[in-house]
Amino acid sequence: MSSIDLEGLLQAIRTVSGLEREWVGLHEPIFQGNEWEYVKECLDTRWVSSVGKFVDRFEIELAQYTGTQRAIAVVNGTAALHICLQLVGIQANDEVLIPTMTFIATANAVAYCNAIPHFVDSEEKTLGLDPKKLENYLDRICDLRPEGCFNRDTGRRIKAIIPVHTFGHPVDLDELVKVCDRFKLELIEDAAESLGSFYKGRHTGNWGRVSALSFNGNKIMTTGGGGAIVTNDKDLASLAKHITTTAKVSHPWAFNHDRIGYNYRLPNLNAALGCAQLEQMPEFLAKKRAISQKYHQVFNQVQGVSFFLEPEFSRSNYWLNTILIDRTEVEQRDKILERTNSQGVMTRPVWTLMHKLTMFENCPKMDLSVAEDLEKRAINIPSSVFLAEDDES
Amino acid sequence: MSSIDLEGLLQAIRTVSGLEREWVGLHEPIFQGNEWEYVKECLDTRWVSSVGKFVDRFEIELAQYTGTQRAIAVVNGTAALHICLQLVGIQANDEVLIPTMTFIATANAVAYCNAIPHFVDSEEKTLGLDPKKLENYLDRICDLRPEGCFNRDTGRRIKAIIPVHTFGHPVDLDELVKVCDRFKLELIEDAAESLGSFYKGRHTGNWGRVSALSFNGNKIMTTGGGGAIVTNDKDLASLAKHITTTAKVSHPWAFNHDRIGYNYRLPNLNAALGCAQLEQMPEFLAKKRAISQKYHQVFNQVQGVSFFLEPEFSRSNYWLNTILIDRTEVEQRDKILERTNSQGVMTRPVWTLMHKLTMFENCPKMDLSVAEDLEKRAINIPSSVFLAEDDES
Repeated sequence: MSSIDLEGLLQAIRTVSGLEREWVGLHEPIFQGNEWEYVKECLDTRWVSSVGKFVDRFEIELAQYTGTQRAIAVVNGTAALHICLQLVGIQANDEVLIPTMTFIATANAVAYCNAIPHFVDSEEKTLGLDPKKLENYLDRICDLRPEGCFNRDTGRRIKAIIPVHTFGHPVDLDELVKVCDRFKLELIEDAAESLGSFYKGRHTGNWGRVSALSFNGNKIMTTGGGGAIVTNDKDLASLAKHITTTAKVSHPWAFNHDRIGYNYRLPNLNAALGCAQLEQMPEFLAKKRAISQKYHQVFNQVQGVSFFLEPEFSRSNYWLNTILIDRTEVEQRDKILERTNSQGVMTRPVWTLMHKLTMFENCPKMDLSVAEDLEKRAINIPSSVFLAEDDES
Repeated sequence: MSSIDLEGLLQAIRTVSGLEREWVGLHEPIFQGNEWEYVKECLDTRWVSSVGKFVDRFEIELAQYTGTQRAIAVVNGTAALHICLQLVGIQANDEVLIPTMTFIATANAVAYCNAIPHFVDSEEKTLGLDPKKLENYLDRICDLRPEGCFNRDTGRRIKAIIPVHTFGHPVDLDELVKVCDRFKLELIEDAAESLGSFYKGRHTGNWGRVSALSFNGNKIMTTGGGGAIVTNDKDLASLAKHITTTAKVSHPWAFNHDRIGYNYRLPNLNAALGCAQLEQMPEFLAKKRAISQKYHQVFNQVQGVSFFLEPEFSRSNYWLNTILIDRTEVEQRDKILERTNSQGVMTRPVWTLMHKLTMFENCPKMDLSVAEDLEKRAINIPSSVFLAEDDES
């Protein structure tokens, strides 16, 4: 017999996500600021495409918000990651360390570069990369040469690492930076989920040489579809803008391109939405954190599961609130998912681990036992900003 | 001494593009239909991202408009081309025949597949691929084997061909299809510029196994940024949707992906704009053709240049109106470009030919003398839909 009371758990989620709602999604956007005004201005001025004042403004304000030197807006977070890898010089057949527990975009971006994902384990404290376990692993499998870090098994260069701030919770960046320095690894933060999340008081995305953000419809703020590269390296920022603008060389009329580039610029129409959403980030964050506090309280009373709390060194956006099933109760996971979803309360497990997917099953990997444990135990629960408002009304 | 009267030419353009305008772009969008209503509905319903009713509707109406079986909306025309190449089975090191006279996206899409662009000449009649010259060339350089067409020089398979309907003017598709059949080439139409253009009464995009459209801000209609794949092959259409949706396997909560996929879906916000624009295509087309007729009349009076007219087998959208400088006057090209642009009348030459760009200069190519001649002679002139209205008022 299970010690998890399915109805009690469903009721716990509903206490926070709304008792009267017939259906509640995992993360839906909310538009209560200047969205109308800015989007309408795009239409009225006819500036809707890849050049326009909202794109410029969005990039400036995004850099300000994240405390980075520069932001380059792109069509989505996947595109941002793809370009980040190119910016740090990833070549075909390089290996790139990424968590096995991540959304597919992280692994796909590596594949787009004809590079090889090399899967790394997570730690329960952050749900992200475990720097200590990684260091021990690299100690065992790597040759450090003047030209970089090489995988002794495959003979390939291990060039970079992409930590993911899972569900908005920062990894232990200081510890990870030490590992990167020691093993000459380029650090790219996959901050797709962590806009508004701070590590030791500073916004995520400031530790990587370049970092990727996402403004997909399910994120804390959205541009419809969109993403950005942020960096403190101005030269790389200029290069990022160049590569994402088809590598076109500036000229009043001539069309010259000096390398393989991409059509990755964010349209002004979407940037307009982004400007309006970004203005509301302080409010969104406060509400997100209020929702997570409520969940924390409520789940204190629910047997068999615990509510995941931000690591002590971080202030998280709590993008997707997460419960962890007790290890003795993991066989209840699918029952919880089935029951909640069938009742109109959207929940989901973590992504299928990358090393289990057909196209990545032969990629190099370390022991992934913590990620495999978390995969059995973690469930995301409804987390939209507007859940906070409904409760107040 | 030149026989081209620069002031007369400038005046000719202004007669059509507006005598009072201080600045006139090459192709600017116009929003006078249901754009705001539909975009506002996205914001009000919070459906702005990659799923939503406008995406579904846009795909259905786009297929109806082009007379194809299915349309799959994507983030831009480059993404559409990239996926088209994957859909017909392009592998690394395959060669893909493309015109040297095209926008960079055609060549980049080939490069994204780690395939090799093989540059083909154009004909003056269509500004696009010359099927007869191509056939003679392939006769000389190819080995036809049971497994396909092979380039005798490079040893590589020549797998596909991408004709571009340049500035909206269809290539001679019937003749090209014969060449494809004979040499076992997959046909992909780059119809990025030819929405609203018909070849022998049928919309472009129906001859390729798959074809690519674009709705960039400078096109006859726009979604801000956007594109589509159209096809009459329903299986390929389903595969296109799958690949462009990160190859996620449908499931109420689980995240499984069965191949390397892409985050290429068009956001609902942009599709809303597209639905409103598509409703106005008949009006846009009528106005575009009226503008081109006026240019034709006006340029009859201008020495040293001729106005480019659609091929006799086509009904073109006249996306970008084009004048051709007489061969004896080609040294005037840059003077014309400088004078017009400095006077606020935007003009431009064709794109720098692909085989002249650093990253493609070592790619295989045939004799490209016609494209090189056209590069010296062609100039695009202002062509926005709203130029027709101003004249009427």
